[in-house]
Amino acid sequence: MRTDSKNVVFSPAPPTLEWIGGIDGVLRLLDQTRLPLEETTIDCRTAEDVWEAIRSLRVRGAPAIGVSAAYGVVIGVQSATTANRDAFDASLRRVCEYLATSRPTAVNLFWAIDRMRRTATESPRLDAKAMAERLLTEARAIEAEDRAMCLAIGRNGAELMPSEGGVLTHCNAGGLATAGDGTALAVLFAAHQVGKRIRVYADETRPLLQGARLTTWELIRRGVPTTLICDSMAGQVMKEGCIQAVVVGADRIAANGDAANKIGTYSVAVLARAHDIPFYVAAPSSTFDFSLPSGEAIPIEIRASEEITEGFGRRTAPRGVDAYNPAFDVTPAKLITGIITERGVIRPVNAETVQRLLRSV
Amino acid sequence: MRTDSKNVVFSPAPPTLEWIGGIDGVLRLLDQTRLPLEETTIDCRTAEDVWEAIRSLRVRGAPAIGVSAAYGVVIGVQSATTANRDAFDASLRRVCEYLATSRPTAVNLFWAIDRMRRTATESPRLDAKAMAERLLTEARAIEAEDRAMCLAIGRNGAELMPSEGGVLTHCNAGGLATAGDGTALAVLFAAHQVGKRIRVYADETRPLLQGARLTTWELIRRGVPTTLICDSMAGQVMKEGCIQAVVVGADRIAANGDAANKIGTYSVAVLARAHDIPFYVAAPSSTFDFSLPSGEAIPIEIRASEEITEGFGRRTAPRGVDAYNPAFDVTPAKLITGIITERGVIRPVNAETVQRLLRSV
Repeated sequence: MRTDSKNVVFSPAPPTLEWIGGIDGVLRLLDQTRLPLEETTIDCRTAEDVWEAIRSLRVRGAPAIGVSAAYGVVIGVQSATTANRDAFDASLRRVCEYLATSRPTAVNLFWAIDRMRRTATESPRLDAKAMAERLLTEARAIEAEDRAMCLAIGRNGAELMPSEGGVLTHCNAGGLATAGDGTALAVLFAAHQVGKRIRVYADETRPLLQGARLTTWELIRRGVPTTLICDSMAGQVMKEGCIQAVVVGADRIAANGDAANKIGTYSVAVLARAHDIPFYVAAPSSTFDFSLPSGEAIPIEIRASEEITEGFGRRTAPRGVDAYNPAFDVTPAKLITGIITERGVIRPVNAETVQRLLRSV
Repeated sequence: MRTDSKNVVFSPAPPTLEWIGGIDGVLRLLDQTRLPLEETTIDCRTAEDVWEAIRSLRVRGAPAIGVSAAYGVVIGVQSATTANRDAFDASLRRVCEYLATSRPTAVNLFWAIDRMRRTATESPRLDAKAMAERLLTEARAIEAEDRAMCLAIGRNGAELMPSEGGVLTHCNAGGLATAGDGTALAVLFAAHQVGKRIRVYADETRPLLQGARLTTWELIRRGVPTTLICDSMAGQVMKEGCIQAVVVGADRIAANGDAANKIGTYSVAVLARAHDIPFYVAAPSSTFDFSLPSGEAIPIEIRASEEITEGFGRRTAPRGVDAYNPAFDVTPAKLITGIITERGVIRPVNAETVQRLLRSV
C-alpha cells in the first residue's frame, strides 16, 4: 500500500443541506459546484431555486436530492398556506410534478416527492396552514431518517472492509450526497473509525470530477488516507495489488439488484471481477425501485456534450466534435458482491435475496 | 451505431515534425500541447530544445519521439562539425546520453539514438563534417522509414476492421505520434479510405487528454466519423453494442507481446475481453524490446500529480491531496487479439509468434 503524509486536515465544513427557520424557512445548500476551492452556501427560497440547484448539481447524490426535494415541496406551498385546502392541494400537485423533472435517474427524488404527496393525502381534514406544518415535519423526518440510514449503512459495511488495505470508490457517495455521512463513504468513515487501516483510492470521475472535487475533500477532512487517481488508472492500481475492495453508491437499483450509478461504475465492476476484488454497492432501501424487474428498464440520463468538451471553463476538444455523455451506467447484479443497506447486507445479489431483505415485514 | 452530422472538415494542418534546411537546419515541431485550439510550431535549435519538447509532450508518441530524437542528435553535433573526429564523437556521445533521459518508457527513443550512434561507429574514417552529413541522412532515413511503416501498418490493419461498426481507440497513436499517418489511426484512416463504414469512439485519455485534443482533431480532419467519450464510458459503449473492435498504439512491447501503452489501455483491454471484442495493438517492429522477456520488466514513468489535480489550468482537487499518476500501463499478451506491425499481423500473441514474425530474416 502506498503511503504519504501530504494529506492535511481542515476545519469543519458547512452541512450539505440545512433547513433554516420554521414553516417560512429556506433551504440552505452547500454549493457543491464550487467545491473544493470555495465553501459557499446558497439559500433556496422558491421551488425554482431548488429545481435549479438539483439540476445544476449544486446539491447531488440520490439521498441528498430526495431530502432537498422534500424541503422543496415545503417551499413550493409556502405561498398557499392562507388558501383553502383545495387550492393548497393544487399548489402541492404542481410543485411535486415540477420538482420531479429536475433529474430523471435519481429514484429518491420521486420517492421523497411521493412521500410528501402521500402525507397530504393521508390528512385530508387539515387546513392549509396545518398541512404545511405537517409537510415540514415530514421533510424533517426524511432528513433525520437519512442521517440514521447513513450510520446504519456505515455500521453494516465497515465489517466487510479489509482490516488493512486499499479501497477504491467512484464518484461521490459521501456526506455531500446525503444529509448524513453518506453511503459508500459512510462505510469508509466507519471502517476508519473502528481502526481499520485503509487507504481510499478515489476515481476523479469524469466529466464532472465529483471524485476529485468532493470525495477527496470529504475523506481528507475526516483524516482518512486518500489517493486521487484518474478513472483510467483503476485497472492499474488493481493490477498493482493496491485494492482489496471497491465500494460505490447507487442512484437506482432494480428489483433484481442491477444498480445504476455514475458513469464508469460498470467499468470498475468489470475490472474488480477480473482482479477477484469484492465489489460492494452501498445504498439505502429507498434506492430500490421494485417497479423495475431489471436494470435494463432504468432510464439513463444523457447530459450535454459540453460537460466533456468544455468541462473546466476551457475547451479541450476541437469545435464541432460529437461527444456522447451518458451520466449513468448499470452494473448487473452478477458483478456485485453485496449491497450494503441500512437493514443489512444483501449477498449474493439476486431478485430473491433483495426481496427477502427489503420486502419482509 | 450512433450517427451525427456535426463533424466538420478542416484545412490541412502543419506536419507533426519537419526538418528545415540542410546540415545547419532546425527541427520544426507542431506544438501538440497547444492543440486543438492553436496550431503553432516551434523550431528546435539546440539539443535542449529537443529534450524539452519531448519531455513536455510538445512532440509525443513513440515513433515521433524516435524521429525527433534522431534529428536532435544532428542538432546536438552541429557545433562540433569543425572539430576533429574524437571531439565530434565525444559531443555525439554526450547528446545521445542526454536525449535518452527525456522520456523513460518510449523504446523508440533509445532505438533511434542507438541507430544514430551506430551510424557513427560504422564510419570511423569520416571527418566531423562528413559524419554530421551522414547522421542527417540517417535521421532522414528514419523519418522516411517511419512514413512507410505507417502506411504498411494501415494496410495490414484495415482488413481486421469491421466493414461497418464502431472502433474504440485510447490516447493518440495517430499522425501526431509519428512522422506519417500514425499506427492505430493509420489502421482507421486506411479502413475509412477503403470504404469501411466505421465510427471511431475516442477515449479522452486523462490526465493529458490526448484523445480529446489530438485524436478527435486528426480524425475529423480526415473526415472519419468520430465520437468523443470519457475514459469511464468505454465499458458503457461496449455494453451498448457500439464497439466492434479496439485499436491502440504501444510505447514498448516485450518479447512475449506484453504491451506498454498510455495509462488506461489495460482497463480497455480487460473491458474488451469481458465484452468479447477484439483488441488490437498497432505498432512498428521498432517498438519491440527483445531484451525484456515480459511486460513486468517494462519501467513505468510516474508523472507529476499536478497533471491530475491541475490538469485544465485550474485546480480540481483539494490542496494537499495525494495523487498517483502512472503514465503507462502494461496490457498482457493474453488480452491482445493481434499486434499489427509493418511486417504483418502477430496473432495469437505470444513469445513464439512475436519471434517468428520479427526475428526471421
